[in-house]
Amino acid sequence: MVRVTVPVPGRAYEVTIGPGVLAEAAQHLALPSSASVTFVVSDRTVSDLWFDPLAASLRGAGVSAVLLTVPEGEDAKSLQAYGTLVRQLAGREAHRDDPIVALGGGSVGDLAGFVASTYMRGVPCLQIPTTLTAQVDAAIGGKTAINLPEGKNLVGTFSQPRGVLVDLEVLKTLDDRSYRSGLAEIAKIALTLDLELLAALERDPRPIVERDPAALEDAVTRCVSAKARIVAEDERDAGARLVLNYGHTLGHALERLDAFAGRTHGEAIALGMVFAARLAESRGRATGLVARTARLLSSLGIDASSALPPAEDVLAAIRMDKKYRGGVRWVLLDEPGRPRVVDDVSEDEVRMALEAIGGSRA
Amino acid sequence: MVRVTVPVPGRAYEVTIGPGVLAEAAQHLALPSSASVTFVVSDRTVSDLWFDPLAASLRGAGVSAVLLTVPEGEDAKSLQAYGTLVRQLAGREAHRDDPIVALGGGSVGDLAGFVASTYMRGVPCLQIPTTLTAQVDAAIGGKTAINLPEGKNLVGTFSQPRGVLVDLEVLKTLDDRSYRSGLAEIAKIALTLDLELLAALERDPRPIVERDPAALEDAVTRCVSAKARIVAEDERDAGARLVLNYGHTLGHALERLDAFAGRTHGEAIALGMVFAARLAESRGRATGLVARTARLLSSLGIDASSALPPAEDVLAAIRMDKKYRGGVRWVLLDEPGRPRVVDDVSEDEVRMALEAIGGSRA
Repeated sequence: MVRVTVPVPGRAYEVTIGPGVLAEAAQHLALPSSASVTFVVSDRTVSDLWFDPLAASLRGAGVSAVLLTVPEGEDAKSLQAYGTLVRQLAGREAHRDDPIVALGGGSVGDLAGFVASTYMRGVPCLQIPTTLTAQVDAAIGGKTAINLPEGKNLVGTFSQPRGVLVDLEVLKTLDDRSYRSGLAEIAKIALTLDLELLAALERDPRPIVERDPAALEDAVTRCVSAKARIVAEDERDAGARLVLNYGHTLGHALERLDAFAGRTHGEAIALGMVFAARLAESRGRATGLVARTARLLSSLGIDASSALPPAEDVLAAIRMDKKYRGGVRWVLLDEPGRPRVVDDVSEDEVRMALEAIGGSRA
Repeated sequence: MVRVTVPVPGRAYEVTIGPGVLAEAAQHLALPSSASVTFVVSDRTVSDLWFDPLAASLRGAGVSAVLLTVPEGEDAKSLQAYGTLVRQLAGREAHRDDPIVALGGGSVGDLAGFVASTYMRGVPCLQIPTTLTAQVDAAIGGKTAINLPEGKNLVGTFSQPRGVLVDLEVLKTLDDRSYRSGLAEIAKIALTLDLELLAALERDPRPIVERDPAALEDAVTRCVSAKARIVAEDERDAGARLVLNYGHTLGHALERLDAFAGRTHGEAIALGMVFAARLAESRGRATGLVARTARLLSSLGIDASSALPPAEDVLAAIRMDKKYRGGVRWVLLDEPGRPRVVDDVSEDEVRMALEAIGGSRA
């Protein structure tokens, strides 16, 4: 078991990582001493698997757990699901010191985090992410969000949880596509921020692909630590945190396009990373990065070879990015481990790089 | 014109107070240099009166103003109005640096503040309160909120505005009941935190009752300054800020009761202050405070003589307070200017004090 501190000034908290920590939740979570009840937000699939051991641990500490189920996947992140949840809390007379526990993937964590940061102007939030993506990325750092019909994550808060429990056991039941989506985020951290992790993945990707517990604990801990450093430096996404967006500018744009419906987030950002490597190489940096990125992703079983939608559609989708204001900022690598935020990438450059990666894979 | 700084650590901002400042908004507001458009949230009544001069000032500074109207009064503070507003912003492609301007009373400010703190995880918010209550209380301090069917202000954030404009001209068009509601908040600040203001009001209440500009500027500035000090000390309502709740524990309970429908917030907290004085006197403190409070309120034209609902109904409503957890905390005065938070007031004491103030007015 490992503990990583997220040293956000004034609101530092711990991420506890290890196999089986969920069933020992009461030991590891920083429950307010006044808490006698927790409200566990989860979807049906996850709660069927993991609510009982969580509730048993809490009960052992004299804290009851009330399950509030939300729709599966992105459907949890609607205004309607938000309204339902805050009204359920009010109807059950949840109070300011009653913690909300997010038990699930990124969508559950985003919704429950937003609810916790706004119900009664903020109640304690504990995150128990149950997908690899949420464990290495979404549950760390305090970004909460819901979607609007007009776009994803358009409403939310920056609000740090009180604690995060990362149970590696729960990954055993995760389906392959979802797991590989998480591997793409791990590859992102390796390429941008952790050369030792990159070396380990390139040396032998098999342990992590096969969900070897020791390899997972190491990789997850490295990713959480890297993200913790970045978040502490830039809680509100004004600078350093942009690095975590590596591969995401194109990735998010692809996710906005119908032609990309059905792809995982991991596949979208995998393509985004190959594309960012192409942009960097076309600017005379990071020689060989396209091939190296493609090799890494492939060795992790991640498909980065989807056909791209037409370039003009992609450009239009990029312009809709909520970070867009007159120009898009891209994260490019000078070389692995040396990310740089650039804001002078022209649409022509993007067009050419899209053709290049489209062509190289045809 | 007076400027008061609200010295919240890391997020200090200025309240500009004076007649006519709304029509000079662009000069006084700390608009982000990148802003080219503002979204003005207001209701029909207020925007008919004040949107044009505001928009003209902004236009003069090269910033356009888009009006988004919301329902009048508390109806603005619904989940539905919230959803409508964030979707309107998204539909108009409002960006992270586009300010939201709240132009209206407390309800508009609460809703617009909540929208600003959550749309794209926070955009700049400027408050231009147009009722006396909002000018001396609601618009200062960064509490935002909407209501649920289950109760008032159950959802919201602590989120400081970027600036506040208090135009004393707009009070000229305010109806008498609303104005007197604001006077009740001024009386609260005078009794709890500003003995000079209390002395001035007791010496000659006529100027403020008659909306004399100089008297108003002085009283509003004093109230804003007092609140600014308290808020800076306790942004998230964990201690010192409770003092601002003087008269509000009973006041909010009365507002929750149907029997009190139609009364103003000011009338409810006026009764709450008389009641708190009664509680203090019954504990051997603040001799003569009941009579002094009643005299002050009466001289300001505030009706603190409504018949109280049955004591058991009031007690049940007090128990529903969101600050309630096992026991209610009351703000009582040892004497004017010396507030104290107490948590050992028994329900029997409350019952007796309710009978006493009910009886004294029969």
